[in-house]
Amino acid sequence: MSPFTGSATGTKEWRHLRLTLDSGVATVTLARPEKLNALTFGAYADLRDLLAELAREGSVRALVLGGEGRGFCSGGDVDDIIGATLAMDTRQLLDFNRMTGQVVRALRECPFPVVAAVHGAAAGAGAVLALAADFRVADPSARFSFLFTKVGLSGGDMGAAYLLPRVVGLGHATRLLMLGEPVRAAEAERIGLISKLVDEGRAAAEAAVLARRLADGPALALAQTKALLTAELDMPLGASIEMDAATQALLMNSADYAEFHAAFTARRPPGWQGR
Amino acid sequence: MSPFTGSATGTKEWRHLRLTLDSGVATVTLARPEKLNALTFGAYADLRDLLAELAREGSVRALVLGGEGRGFCSGGDVDDIIGATLAMDTRQLLDFNRMTGQVVRALRECPFPVVAAVHGAAAGAGAVLALAADFRVADPSARFSFLFTKVGLSGGDMGAAYLLPRVVGLGHATRLLMLGEPVRAAEAERIGLISKLVDEGRAAAEAAVLARRLADGPALALAQTKALLTAELDMPLGASIEMDAATQALLMNSADYAEFHAAFTARRPPGWQGR
Amino acid sequence: MSPFTGSATGTKEWRHLRLTLDSGVATVTLARPEKLNALTFGAYADLRDLLAELAREGSVRALVLGGEGRGFCSGGDVDDIIGATLAMDTRQLLDFNRMTGQVVRALRECPFPVVAAVHGAAAGAGAVLALAADFRVADPSARFSFLFTKVGLSGGDMGAAYLLPRVVGLGHATRLLMLGEPVRAAEAERIGLISKLVDEGRAAAEAAVLARRLADGPALALAQTKALLTAELDMPLGASIEMDAATQALLMNSADYAEFHAAFTARRPPGWQGR
Repeated sequence: MSPFTGSATGTKEWRHLRLTLDSGVATVTLARPEKLNALTFGAYADLRDLLAELAREGSVRALVLGGEGRGFCSGGDVDDIIGATLAMDTRQLLDFNRMTGQVVRALRECPFPVVAAVHGAAAGAGAVLALAADFRVADPSARFSFLFTKVGLSGGDMGAAYLLPRVVGLGHATRLLMLGEPVRAAEAERIGLISKLVDEGRAAAEAAVLARRLADGPALALAQTKALLTAELDMPLGASIEMDAATQALLMNSADYAEFHAAFTARRPPGWQGR
Repeated sequence: MSPFTGSATGTKEWRHLRLTLDSGVATVTLARPEKLNALTFGAYADLRDLLAELAREGSVRALVLGGEGRGFCSGGDVDDIIGATLAMDTRQLLDFNRMTGQVVRALRECPFPVVAAVHGAAAGAGAVLALAADFRVADPSARFSFLFTKVGLSGGDMGAAYLLPRVVGLGHATRLLMLGEPVRAAEAERIGLISKLVDEGRAAAEAAVLARRLADGPALALAQTKALLTAELDMPLGASIEMDAATQALLMNSADYAEFHAAFTARRPPGWQGR
Repeated sequence: MSPFTGSATGTKEWRHLRLTLDSGVATVTLARPEKLNALTFGAYADLRDLLAELAREGSVRALVLGGEGRGFCSGGDVDDIIGATLAMDTRQLLDFNRMTGQVVRALRECPFPVVAAVHGAAAGAGAVLALAADFRVADPSARFSFLFTKVGLSGGDMGAAYLLPRVVGLGHATRLLMLGEPVRAAEAERIGLISKLVDEGRAAAEAAVLARRLADGPALALAQTKALLTAELDMPLGASIEMDAATQALLMNSADYAEFHAAFTARRPPGWQGR
């Protein structure tokens, strides 16, 4: 747990999502299966606030994001969100869209890897949540649909026009964001949108295995790897190489690096401490 | 049509390409089939000027770019262009190369999607024109050749060294631009250079179908999707998310977004107006 | 050879690698086969200094980087490097990591294409050296492992967190850098990490053929193509197009461009001079 805490107390109850914590692995489940886990204002706000709290608190070393029931997440709720936004003024519309973007920013910038467990529909904002994760563990039922243009909005929602070309290339990204058509698992794997394709019905279990492995690994090194991947998308070559050098020099003073060498010399597996 | 017009009158006759307009779809055809649609100074200038006029005028909602005869476009004409440039002074050479680059910039920045219909050769500048389009609808005869180094020039022509790595990745882009070898349709599809592979002889027809669908869709949302994809290649994550939020807030006031909700509620298809 | 030489004399003997020069092709071989060509402090320093000298001297037009024995390069030596860094102070750690990064920067910025000939293991820093090359010619035994996290360090080493997402996309790059698992040749080709897959045992020979072809080609045009690819990863669209225009105008005054036109007109192959 971080020594840098002030007066703020952690949230006691997350009302719009389900959270479990198990020895460094946080599992966040969108649990509104009767609505295909459609997102509400409350769910966005909870994701934003939860990620910020976990980042500050410091004990989480990997996070799984999944959905209960038939699919991962069908995106913003047509009734609760689209209907409501039609009645909003300019200030409220901007606030809402900034909030959804903050969730993506938090997913990219939190100091632990995020594993999305995707089965069935990952649609609209649901597709972008999966896209913003570090890993997408998906089963053959997975179906990504960036369907924003189908509701009359821009395909560039919550950073999708930034992230998708960097994951699948500009050509595929243009097609996916403009047309909003579903990308099935086979194509998603082929174009690099799925990190690991697993057997039917195994997405949640395999995502949990991966998160456990990450949390039990050299967690500080993994967190820095994520931070560098995120930052260097926006940095030039020379500065990136300098940032890598400073980061690596820092980690060469870490307990885990010394532990690797001791374990290697003693021909035993390393016991990672994540610091 | 845009209310923001001044004294400039539109060009009455495009002498170096063929233009047809049909309810929001512009079809631009390179029509010099006896020369495999090799580009001339006039053709470059017409593409530059036409795209600027269409962007200002405002009634075009999608554009198809294709070539008549055996192929899409064989690039700059060896006699008309390479021969002529050998006699140019420094100022003229810079003017010529800026003009060709302006065509690519106009293709990326015009406020409507561009669909390249590619069959046969897309070579040199022809390959870059296709690359700068939002969609490349190609048939199995398509053959992309970035053959600039084969004439002693840089593979980075008209933005190709910027665009190609962002479409197919740096490894493939280096190989294609340095070696100038033809990429056949199967490989082009595999590496993400083709958006949609269609049956032999069907590129123009399928490109027209896609353009019609885009033009009849939520055209303002599609134009903004393109603008964000283009802009966010050059923007960091945080600013991109802010730009998405502001754009989406803007579009939530659009007629098409309200129409989606009304149509969804009434269980009828939306009637998009593109505003 | 460059006219811009001062007092510095070239290094007479490279003690930590093998160098051969043959009519514009430099072949650099990591030659410590009993250690799978594990890198030492001296090998990093020699690579850094050699690339700088070759860039200044000006007669090299293509470079092959390969490894002797069973594999390409197993990365930093566990005994010579990991052990030694554990005894270093902060300043020394930064100096070491900057040196390794300078090798990658030199590979990306030297004015000639670099062809990595990869067979067997390309692990850790060895994988990054291959990644920083312009071409990766590999045989089916090739196995890329970005195994930094396995020793408790960041996957972003020597620019890997910058380069890998630009070669294979952010999704694959995250997986490779975080998990450190080996990527076999078939997958490496599929995701764009291999430029050319050749028959078993043929990597060095085919890399030499490619380097010879590049060195005998329009070498100035190829060097500028590389420079633009490297620079435009870090530049926005408009500036990239302007840079392409200025570069192309410059090369339209080159001997090789005139030679192309003369040869084309005379229906003979061009005799490239590389200037």
